[in-house]
Amino acid sequence: MNAETFKKKFVTFDDTDKESLENVLSIIEDVKKNSDSALKKYTEQFDGQTVEDFRVPEEKLKRSFENLSDEEKNALILIKDRIADYQQSIKYKDYQDGEFSYVYHPLERIGIYIPGGTALYPSSVLMSAVPAAVAGVKDIVAVTPTFTDENITLAALYIAGVTEVYTAGGAQAVAALAYGTESIKKVDKITGPGNKYVALAKKQVFGDVGIDMIAGPSEILLYVDDTADYTAIAYDVFAQAEHDVNARTFLLAESSNVIEAVQSEIDRLIGEQQRTDVIRESLNNNHYQIIDSRENLLEIINYIAPEHVSIQHREEQVISKNIRYAGAVFIGKYSPEAIGDYAAGPSHVLPTNQTGRFSHGLNVNDFLTSHAVIQLKEGTYNSIADAAKTIAKKEGLYAHYESLNIRTER
Amino acid sequence: MNAETFKKKFVTFDDTDKESLENVLSIIEDVKKNSDSALKKYTEQFDGQTVEDFRVPEEKLKRSFENLSDEEKNALILIKDRIADYQQSIKYKDYQDGEFSYVYHPLERIGIYIPGGTALYPSSVLMSAVPAAVAGVKDIVAVTPTFTDENITLAALYIAGVTEVYTAGGAQAVAALAYGTESIKKVDKITGPGNKYVALAKKQVFGDVGIDMIAGPSEILLYVDDTADYTAIAYDVFAQAEHDVNARTFLLAESSNVIEAVQSEIDRLIGEQQRTDVIRESLNNNHYQIIDSRENLLEIINYIAPEHVSIQHREEQVISKNIRYAGAVFIGKYSPEAIGDYAAGPSHVLPTNQTGRFSHGLNVNDFLTSHAVIQLKEGTYNSIADAAKTIAKKEGLYAHYESLNIRTER
Repeated sequence: MNAETFKKKFVTFDDTDKESLENVLSIIEDVKKNSDSALKKYTEQFDGQTVEDFRVPEEKLKRSFENLSDEEKNALILIKDRIADYQQSIKYKDYQDGEFSYVYHPLERIGIYIPGGTALYPSSVLMSAVPAAVAGVKDIVAVTPTFTDENITLAALYIAGVTEVYTAGGAQAVAALAYGTESIKKVDKITGPGNKYVALAKKQVFGDVGIDMIAGPSEILLYVDDTADYTAIAYDVFAQAEHDVNARTFLLAESSNVIEAVQSEIDRLIGEQQRTDVIRESLNNNHYQIIDSRENLLEIINYIAPEHVSIQHREEQVISKNIRYAGAVFIGKYSPEAIGDYAAGPSHVLPTNQTGRFSHGLNVNDFLTSHAVIQLKEGTYNSIADAAKTIAKKEGLYAHYESLNIRTER
Repeated sequence: MNAETFKKKFVTFDDTDKESLENVLSIIEDVKKNSDSALKKYTEQFDGQTVEDFRVPEEKLKRSFENLSDEEKNALILIKDRIADYQQSIKYKDYQDGEFSYVYHPLERIGIYIPGGTALYPSSVLMSAVPAAVAGVKDIVAVTPTFTDENITLAALYIAGVTEVYTAGGAQAVAALAYGTESIKKVDKITGPGNKYVALAKKQVFGDVGIDMIAGPSEILLYVDDTADYTAIAYDVFAQAEHDVNARTFLLAESSNVIEAVQSEIDRLIGEQQRTDVIRESLNNNHYQIIDSRENLLEIINYIAPEHVSIQHREEQVISKNIRYAGAVFIGKYSPEAIGDYAAGPSHVLPTNQTGRFSHGLNVNDFLTSHAVIQLKEGTYNSIADAAKTIAKKEGLYAHYESLNIRTER
């Protein structure tokens, strides 16, 4: 298949609609106006829970951690340390060059949305909160509609460096973080994935607070050849598919033999999978393609900018060097996407749905802000003031002209 | 005045309303559906112009430049070079460390909104487009509702590295850039300031394309002492005020003598200003305050995160080092804000309205995207796979577990 045919067939995911947007807008207005009482109302309405105090006591978080097995405790700590080490290594540093400096500072207060419900994703807690902690953010606030009493999500929040946890979810939690309520003080930026209401709410509050990205269903593009372990690739496909029924896999290869071999492993093993119903439905979104040239492969990858690209191929180095747009790229047998989901180091909060073409995975630098400091010397000023004055005059900004002129006159 | 009193009195700017939002949503839907014909309709309706071909011919841009005086040509070129040099110096570089690399790539196609109407702002063209050109963006598309035949805005577009220019503005131009029409191919990211409809439209298309920020009225915070030239400060205040009637100035000092001295220069000179009506109205938004401690000063600055902070004070170094949140900081007599508007180097497209607390001025790095490349060695993999497997099991993601497990088994 060539790239143009592929592009024509490729459809971006869109589950938003006008009614949902209107609902979200009215929830945001209500929380802005009625604060905690609106937050309570929607938590009852959507989560079926009556919450008296949104704040989760530190003691409860601590107990959740302490009640874990040693194996689980150690796993969380190891993962936390891996994330922290990696994020520290890519953290931006101040830059100074003569008359300019460019400086970075941690955000003061950020909010992390942690999806809740029945599923528990402690890895998402660590992947979102640890980069913020490494950045040096003072107040790291988490909101999550997780109503069970003690669990590994709360345990992860305990060790991640989170300073406040609130039991709230949906558009109402996003609105509370963006505008503040009696219980929850306004934050400067909101990060973390959520359902479509969370995504719509994040979009509406964008500009009033910072937002990381709008997350869609998970995707992987696997490019494999006959050096790959077909059974392992089948499990990589299942791992992607088990996320949810909208998850997508693009399995590409140069030869139909490779695709057939993986397909045959999938057929052989699918019945044994624990989340087999989700996997079967999700597999409907799989796209298996024979790619006839390296050029077409790269054009397809750069067009989709897949959340995950996994290259298990004898020419993996040269291929990966030519990938411009992706959430993250995983090379070789020992970097399956699942290791990135947990313990490799880079955050697994990654852009989906073609947004990798303009945005990047959540990292420590998303929790910094920056500005230029300008201190020109007299000589520099005099060498450029005339050009500035010429354009100021042309723009009709005469006080700009005078503000520039008076400094050369005296 | 102390910081708490200041914060209570401080009001963020908000000129959006539900009706405008609904209008913008319907314009976006219309452009999505009816493409160029909707774009034509709204250009007639809002700009009173019938446009047959949205594309501005290269020849017209070239002629606009060639018809400038040598002084103007040289000014534009000097400014362009200053911007390019500075942006090159802060451009992010790929990072490689053992099993990880973190790589940057220019965006493929970006759209810049250039405000039009009667005012011409060639400096805004250069400040937006040159950083994109330095980033290496292939297609740099500008849209502007500038209908005059030849002018310095078109000249600036000619030398800035812009590859396509279209005569369109408002929410309809933003929608065209975000979703594409017959005339204008979809872009990956939209940058540049505009009026409230442009701002609302950018917010609505956020997520489908990248967006730089939502711009509000311009602001400056001036902190001065008796080492400052009061006449120059008065012109700095006028320069800020002449932008538009919503522009804000915060003039802070330790002593009432300093504020009175500046005020007296303002009173003496205001009658001579060319844009005196705008300046007089805008001065109503000025806030002159005596600041009783350095701590209060910094708390106020970091709370407002002013678009521009200008420190003309004997202790300017130590003060500027403690500023965490600002659009840009200007130090000393030879760095008035007006030089930053034109020729210093850093972009003058800066966050306003407290958004400097989470966002930064437009720069070359906003036109790059990035991703991690992960290639673990077998030993590293084996040292972390167990922790990952433990958490995968706990999260109920069994295929993730198997995808991890099969690589340690074989």
